[in-house]
Amino acid sequence: MSTGSQSIAGPGEASLKRPPQRNPLVPTIHDLQTPALVVDGPRLEANLATMAKAHPGTALRPHVKAHKSTAIAKRQAAHGHATFCAATIREIEGMAAAGLGEDLLLANEVLDATRLGVVSRSGARVTVAVDSPETIEAASCGGVPEVLIDVNVGLPRCGCAPEEAGALAEMARGKGLEVRGVMGYEGHVVGLPDRAKREAGCAASMKLLEQAHADVGGDIVSAGGTGTYDCNPWANEIQAGSYVLMDTAYARLGLPFSQAFYVLSTVVSTAPGDASYVIGDAGLKSLGMDHGDPALPGGRVLFCSDEHITFVPGRAEDDDAPSPLDWELPGRPVAVGDPIRLVPAHVDPTLAYHERVYVAEGEEVVDEWPIDLRGW
Amino acid sequence: MSTGSQSIAGPGEASLKRPPQRNPLVPTIHDLQTPALVVDGPRLEANLATMAKAHPGTALRPHVKAHKSTAIAKRQAAHGHATFCAATIREIEGMAAAGLGEDLLLANEVLDATRLGVVSRSGARVTVAVDSPETIEAASCGGVPEVLIDVNVGLPRCGCAPEEAGALAEMARGKGLEVRGVMGYEGHVVGLPDRAKREAGCAASMKLLEQAHADVGGDIVSAGGTGTYDCNPWANEIQAGSYVLMDTAYARLGLPFSQAFYVLSTVVSTAPGDASYVIGDAGLKSLGMDHGDPALPGGRVLFCSDEHITFVPGRAEDDDAPSPLDWELPGRPVAVGDPIRLVPAHVDPTLAYHERVYVAEGEEVVDEWPIDLRGW
Repeated sequence: MSTGSQSIAGPGEASLKRPPQRNPLVPTIHDLQTPALVVDGPRLEANLATMAKAHPGTALRPHVKAHKSTAIAKRQAAHGHATFCAATIREIEGMAAAGLGEDLLLANEVLDATRLGVVSRSGARVTVAVDSPETIEAASCGGVPEVLIDVNVGLPRCGCAPEEAGALAEMARGKGLEVRGVMGYEGHVVGLPDRAKREAGCAASMKLLEQAHADVGGDIVSAGGTGTYDCNPWANEIQAGSYVLMDTAYARLGLPFSQAFYVLSTVVSTAPGDASYVIGDAGLKSLGMDHGDPALPGGRVLFCSDEHITFVPGRAEDDDAPSPLDWELPGRPVAVGDPIRLVPAHVDPTLAYHERVYVAEGEEVVDEWPIDLRGW
Repeated sequence: MSTGSQSIAGPGEASLKRPPQRNPLVPTIHDLQTPALVVDGPRLEANLATMAKAHPGTALRPHVKAHKSTAIAKRQAAHGHATFCAATIREIEGMAAAGLGEDLLLANEVLDATRLGVVSRSGARVTVAVDSPETIEAASCGGVPEVLIDVNVGLPRCGCAPEEAGALAEMARGKGLEVRGVMGYEGHVVGLPDRAKREAGCAASMKLLEQAHADVGGDIVSAGGTGTYDCNPWANEIQAGSYVLMDTAYARLGLPFSQAFYVLSTVVSTAPGDASYVIGDAGLKSLGMDHGDPALPGGRVLFCSDEHITFVPGRAEDDDAPSPLDWELPGRPVAVGDPIRLVPAHVDPTLAYHERVYVAEGEEVVDEWPIDLRGW
């Protein structure tokens, strides 16, 4: 009996539904060369459904920078979203080439929009963020017909001062550009673990964005992220990306999205003598490390090297948190050849290291998706 | 007058040799889409020459994991090295396919050596590290004819206990494998800034490796890295990789290798109002972050996001260190469109993010090399 075509289950159900006799013709995660990126199909679908219910259709502008995969973007489209945003020109090009070009926003500044203009002339709808005379000039010269005014709402990154937004919009319109509205990313608050502080920070940021919007005009007020998806009623489209796959950083916020991917690794060595550490074959080149070491459910990570992770089996004494996966290190001694699963601290830079992701239902591998939007 | 074909100069000379009139037909780094990885050709060649003088020919087994590029490996071969080591099966496959398969060592453990066996049967010489009965079995089953016994010399990572090495060698020979000797990586000491401690730590590690070698036999004693290249007389081949390009972590050791690459970025936004920060278009997905933020000569990095770096121009008051590059932020105010250069904290995971590297002499781009050994 094959389960390769079974219906997508809710989070946590997949392993319970596995049949006692596995069909040997269906590959499993144990057939994968490690390190390998594995997406839990049922959890991915549950995350997509949860977000689509909260922000249906164009109320969500999914950010493809988190996953860099047109296959995952197509799953988002299947849940009703037709407008997307991206952080790089390459992402915009790839989305358009994959037939997902109905309404693409480069939510980032560029000084050479030539390639974006090519995408626009190919028939995709392309909008680019601008926050200065130089970036307006780039959009105009590059042939990108539509822009959003990017407003700084507190994160020390891109965006003009709210009080400058109106003048920039006027400048853009003077160059023949269509100004669709404003965007402003409250990135300094999306990760605040205290919900009250997150809500207050978001409200303060959106007050600035509304002020700018009053001067700019246009239909779009684009903001938000996974961490503020349910406390930002001011934006009329939410730019969330991490909700699809999640990571240990976002897991701290208590959101209704579950960890839907892991890096599969194999134990390749164990400590000599009485030492208790164990070594897996996944390291710095398969994990985004800016938020720190990955989690290994049921184990304590000591450090990562380029292609290795050194860890000690067993939980810390004060650790009684549930595993973020349907998996934890077995209680028996870990042996060479054992598979282990790592939960990266930051999803975006992790996926950017991988060429492909394997889609699993429990341990069955049911699909393989390229991470095809990497690079610039 | 074109300088595109000028001879490779020593470190520090390149920018001095730039002609006052640039040939517009020769592309410069200012024509590159950013972020872009740029190798300084003269500095690369100087690093290669310095190491080849210290460890000529097979006394160095260059580690390709640092650069993941067969083009750079060919430059190492041009400096007289014919034996290489690698950390992944993909690296071994790519090196053999590029005609660099005279003597390839996978300095890492694998439990499925099937693909290595294919490379071996294609005519390349392939040796794999083993440290357990399971990895010996994998080498035997996969058809890899030669092994090194990997010995733990203090780094809590792979390697058998020194006193177990002889028995493992016997086991390997019993399976018909040729045992070429031992390897042991003193990775816990290669980065120690205090040279005396580095030397003492290296000596202690190599004592363990010599003990194992006495039991194992074979011609090879393989060890070392860039940090111990000149204080490890016990190994008869040094596995160094970082010396080619360097990074801020290794720069602290005072080695005779200079920073030979940088990530080129463009200023895409500046702070609104009175704030002084500036934003460049290179971030977590173009920089290895496990050793922390990159350096920006003449500026102070505040933080990195996926595709951005936020920094403040100007040195810290107590910072009078020379720039690791022939470049520093200009004294004038930084403007949108200005190029900036970032020195990554860790070379290996930085290169693994990039598809290609541009080779520059000063600001002229003279070549483009693929980073073709990425993935697994």
